[in-house]
Amino acid sequence: MARTSITAIKVRWGETDPMGIVFYPSYFAWFDHATHELFASSGRSLITWLQQDGFSVPIIDCGARFRAPVFADDEITVTSMAVEVRSRSLRVEHVVTRAGDEVATGFEVRVVARLGEAGRLDISRMPDQMREWFEG
Amino acid sequence: MARTSITAIKVRWGETDPMGIVFYPSYFAWFDHATHELFASSGRSLITWLQQDGFSVPIIDCGARFRAPVFADDEITVTSMAVEVRSRSLRVEHVVTRAGDEVATGFEVRVVARLGEAGRLDISRMPDQMREWFEG
Amino acid sequence: MARTSITAIKVRWGETDPMGIVFYPSYFAWFDHATHELFASSGRSLITWLQQDGFSVPIIDCGARFRAPVFADDEITVTSMAVEVRSRSLRVEHVVTRAGDEVATGFEVRVVARLGEAGRLDISRMPDQMREWFEG
Amino acid sequence: MARTSITAIKVRWGETDPMGIVFYPSYFAWFDHATHELFASSGRSLITWLQQDGFSVPIIDCGARFRAPVFADDEITVTSMAVEVRSRSLRVEHVVTRAGDEVATGFEVRVVARLGEAGRLDISRMPDQMREWFEG
Repeated sequence: MARTSITAIKVRWGETDPMGIVFYPSYFAWFDHATHELFASSGRSLITWLQQDGFSVPIIDCGARFRAPVFADDEITVTSMAVEVRSRSLRVEHVVTRAGDEVATGFEVRVVARLGEAGRLDISRMPDQMREWFEG
Repeated sequence: MARTSITAIKVRWGETDPMGIVFYPSYFAWFDHATHELFASSGRSLITWLQQDGFSVPIIDCGARFRAPVFADDEITVTSMAVEVRSRSLRVEHVVTRAGDEVATGFEVRVVARLGEAGRLDISRMPDQMREWFEG
Repeated sequence: MARTSITAIKVRWGETDPMGIVFYPSYFAWFDHATHELFASSGRSLITWLQQDGFSVPIIDCGARFRAPVFADDEITVTSMAVEVRSRSLRVEHVVTRAGDEVATGFEVRVVARLGEAGRLDISRMPDQMREWFEG
Repeated sequence: MARTSITAIKVRWGETDPMGIVFYPSYFAWFDHATHELFASSGRSLITWLQQDGFSVPIIDCGARFRAPVFADDEITVTSMAVEVRSRSLRVEHVVTRAGDEVATGFEVRVVARLGEAGRLDISRMPDQMREWFEG
């Protein structure tokens, strides 16, 4: 069973554009936040992974499709599922719904990286504790 | 020859995250801006198309790949090319370079929409003036 | 009694900067959102006021003071109070707390404006329904 | 003579709101960027101060006044002046103009802080090199 989390978001006026619809980079801000919530649901947030162990999960690939416009004050739900957990990467898929209707989908492919010397990020094996949680 | 524009951007501190690298939704904010610059290079900006004619080009599909981290104060260039101009949509591809090296790529598929009654957006044929410019 | 609303926010990773603390413009994004929530608590949102009546409440003056750093994943509360409701303007004061401690304060002065011809915004008297709600 | 820098900005569509005017937190994103440009004009950027010496200049107080609406595609100029340079803080004032007309003003009060153990930020005396540059 893939690990899944659900993040409820109320769309902010400032996330919309002169058309009155969501400025599309905002969806990726929500996806990023939703992935952080997914990790947090393991009991260990990405901030903790970074500060205590020097691990991060930077994005290498992402995308989104938009099916219906979303407006300020809309209450939406982002359902995030870790669909591919590999030794050095994971893929998270996101489905955005409003009142039960799918309005957008997206994905993120993230690699596992470890903060090395001089702030360098080096690709790393996923730490056991992280992998075991995803494998349930 | 596909219409192309080049947008120079200096990365802002506020566009980066606690890892010190660009928060990835910022790339899409740049892509959106770069597409606006592409339209502006035709002599008619998207704001003008919206306010004078009620046309807009909302996104239906997009994606990006990140090859190297980008940092605050980096000077980058977004090269944007309208690679598929159809009767009701267009695809813009973006290449981000820093000091000549490709650091990210992305694309946007946008449909042509016309503001209808009560703020509704209806898919529309691309206006002739717009299509002719893209067809060069 | 001044109208007051409380908005709970979980700080997003993308709202923080390379120092790991909130990028300060994010506070104003929260204040703006909190003011929208204050209006929404009247039963009539600012989006409705705009779309049905052409009224908006653009900012003319604002400020904030920051007492303690706020981090990603922090759960904060913005308490917003309409402290000065005049015929053509209102002042909203915001207090940000975390676990009961005040971490920031801010204010917004907004004028009442009405969308006129050609998208012009003209200063206007506050509509009666809006003023009566604020006066409780 | 107070140190001054000028930052040219083209307003992005994504920085505006459903009224078609700039979403006001964007002004603070510009002010922050303009202060970074002011420091960069000394030959030593804030990123360098942070990474090489552990110094940062977090905000403790800020404000802005908006005189005229600003729109997408507007070309604006932020003139930033370090008006009060003290042993542990500085105040930067910003004036935003468009085609020579003042459209907004703002200020930031920043303290000098040094990254201590466990990521703590401690208020610090301004380093000599920084102070001497501001004193001209």
